[in-house]
Amino acid sequence: MRCEVVAIGTELLLGQIVDTNSAWIGGQLALAGIDSHFQTKVGDNLARIVECIRHALERSDAVILCGGLGPTQDDITREAIAQVMGVPLVRSAELAERIRALFAARGREMAANNLRQADVPEGASVIPEMPGTAPGLICPVRDKVIYAVPGVPHEMRTMMLGTVLPDLQRRAGVSAAIRSRVLRTWGHTESGLAELLAPRILELDVLGNPTLAFQASGIEGIKVRITAKAPDHASAEAILAGEEARLRTILGEYVFGVDDQSMESVVIDLLRQRGLTLAIAESVSGGLAAARISAVPGTGDVFLGALVAYASEVKFTLLGVPEGPVVGATAARAMATGVRKLLGADVGLATTGVAGPNEQDGQPMGTVFLGVAVADRVEAKEVHLPGDPDRIRQYAVISVLDLLRRRLLES
Amino acid sequence: MRCEVVAIGTELLLGQIVDTNSAWIGGQLALAGIDSHFQTKVGDNLARIVECIRHALERSDAVILCGGLGPTQDDITREAIAQVMGVPLVRSAELAERIRALFAARGREMAANNLRQADVPEGASVIPEMPGTAPGLICPVRDKVIYAVPGVPHEMRTMMLGTVLPDLQRRAGVSAAIRSRVLRTWGHTESGLAELLAPRILELDVLGNPTLAFQASGIEGIKVRITAKAPDHASAEAILAGEEARLRTILGEYVFGVDDQSMESVVIDLLRQRGLTLAIAESVSGGLAAARISAVPGTGDVFLGALVAYASEVKFTLLGVPEGPVVGATAARAMATGVRKLLGADVGLATTGVAGPNEQDGQPMGTVFLGVAVADRVEAKEVHLPGDPDRIRQYAVISVLDLLRRRLLES
Repeated sequence: MRCEVVAIGTELLLGQIVDTNSAWIGGQLALAGIDSHFQTKVGDNLARIVECIRHALERSDAVILCGGLGPTQDDITREAIAQVMGVPLVRSAELAERIRALFAARGREMAANNLRQADVPEGASVIPEMPGTAPGLICPVRDKVIYAVPGVPHEMRTMMLGTVLPDLQRRAGVSAAIRSRVLRTWGHTESGLAELLAPRILELDVLGNPTLAFQASGIEGIKVRITAKAPDHASAEAILAGEEARLRTILGEYVFGVDDQSMESVVIDLLRQRGLTLAIAESVSGGLAAARISAVPGTGDVFLGALVAYASEVKFTLLGVPEGPVVGATAARAMATGVRKLLGADVGLATTGVAGPNEQDGQPMGTVFLGVAVADRVEAKEVHLPGDPDRIRQYAVISVLDLLRRRLLES
Repeated sequence: MRCEVVAIGTELLLGQIVDTNSAWIGGQLALAGIDSHFQTKVGDNLARIVECIRHALERSDAVILCGGLGPTQDDITREAIAQVMGVPLVRSAELAERIRALFAARGREMAANNLRQADVPEGASVIPEMPGTAPGLICPVRDKVIYAVPGVPHEMRTMMLGTVLPDLQRRAGVSAAIRSRVLRTWGHTESGLAELLAPRILELDVLGNPTLAFQASGIEGIKVRITAKAPDHASAEAILAGEEARLRTILGEYVFGVDDQSMESVVIDLLRQRGLTLAIAESVSGGLAAARISAVPGTGDVFLGALVAYASEVKFTLLGVPEGPVVGATAARAMATGVRKLLGADVGLATTGVAGPNEQDGQPMGTVFLGVAVADRVEAKEVHLPGDPDRIRQYAVISVLDLLRRRLLES
């Protein structure tokens, strides 16, 4: 079973929007065990959309069209599909009613244009999920199939997960359930992790299931993806759980989380479990640590706040840093202690360093000192971070959070 | 002249990397006046790359291949081009020497594999720019042309701007210089701006040059792009300058900057011109304002720091906010004044509000109070911001910066 993706929209060709939808769909197809060899972008032009669909159907068994299902005259995906199928568009009374009801429920008036979204190529069926006003379509073409989903990412994802991927797997006769889980790591290189896992990778090469893959994700660390195949979902999940446990014994504290867990959400959870509150003093990271932590929903019980001490004077007067160089272990310790006391928190964190592009206090770009104060136990760590100023700031944040995570796991 | 883009790499199809290169190239082709109707992604598979190139050459005059020029066995763009051209690959002694010299200059040993990058399809020429070790190629095919550029973004861009775009324009007989400039606006809707500009748009429709286009960019505001065509660059720039001046008289203070200027860089510049220093008190924005400002290079003379007062207690004790509701105009004014005094700055800014998902202090999600204190003149503004918590935070930051910008322009 081969499936192509065609993203529709002139704004994609003009580079006004980057096509992240196709990348996401490609990843999902791979996980579902469906081959996908080509992805195409085409503008809002009927003849060219028709050509793309025909060409895709020649070399593949299924095509997913993404975009062009809106209510305006530019949105012509429905027309293009009808032309490829050689059928007329028929207005669905049921869909029209549903769209009217959606507008009524939101208290908005419906423009007549919106009823175009109720037009369906004869013989096509409507995807049951409909998170917006654009219906998705399943359109049979001889023994092949065209799916149409909206370009709005969350609408597209809902339809893909709810209907398109299961339908594709059914057509492909993929009866196996494929599940994957990502172990998020920090503090070791990809080759370092590969070396630690080498014996297990050899074993898995023989077994064939589950499989492991590495993915370097920059400021998000290195991801280790476990993919398991089994007759049903529960068995696949059981294989994942077993493999996760095994890998954790090998990788230890390098693993900070699973799947969508972020370093900041993990640290907040650890603090909450221990009943500790947090304050942060930020120099080199300039507010980024606070911004990442406050973006985690419901951190108000743990995170009291932060002092972004950008000017040296602020470090001296408010944090009690001794006058002198502000990039160093002494300053990092003083900042962590100072902010903990200033905000009345149990735990203080601090970052001070050189994001560049110029050196400071005789320290080269990338030199960062991290401070951690848990009650009266204070420590500092010097790290040398790679990349441009933005990357150095991001690395400084995840590094100081990781330092606290390890400290909390000790206790 | 029609030109297609083919991005090569299995990691693109698997969604491990989002293809931002094609979007950038599409934008550049549009600016250069070259039509581009299709963009394709294909994996590292010789037969399929060859099929993509052939298909693209059938319907277009030029193809830009992006990626697959590295030294490993996966990098087969050179082989695919040679197959389409029907010629052998020939090792270029000159290129081999250049690659050897590059490695020597960096003090790194060269793997034998790297010499694969010196293989060139017979009849092709090498793009003069070579910022990495991957040479770019210009490959004539009858009266058409294939360009190959690396997938590393900065290498690709250097070759596109230095050679590929000028070569395409020459082939297309485009002797005109096309230049564009973006006016960045904040504080009005797209339809509102369109209404203000309607008379001028009608005039330009008749004149045909320059042209205007709107682009909604979410948290970055609405962009108005002016595109001018002229016999040479200097004349095109003169048209842009004239049109910018005219639009500024219509749009007034909605225009905060031009091209890559950000709201934060504009505000920092205004403060610097006036010799004022800045401190920020952040509640709802949680450190995001400080992070955006400290990411502007060289802000140390203007930006003293910020207090992220996430817990109410921190607002009361450190900022002098009166005990009571912390989402309101009184709190915003007190925070702006309090942080100005705490950090010893000339100007204080403050954000307090409800990012959601739940309401707070009886205020619904999206309600945000902004505070500005310039010396002893303090004011607060209530805004109602749309979107999810992340978007509300981002909007709060740009809104409070815009408030300060307008205040500084008054004085």
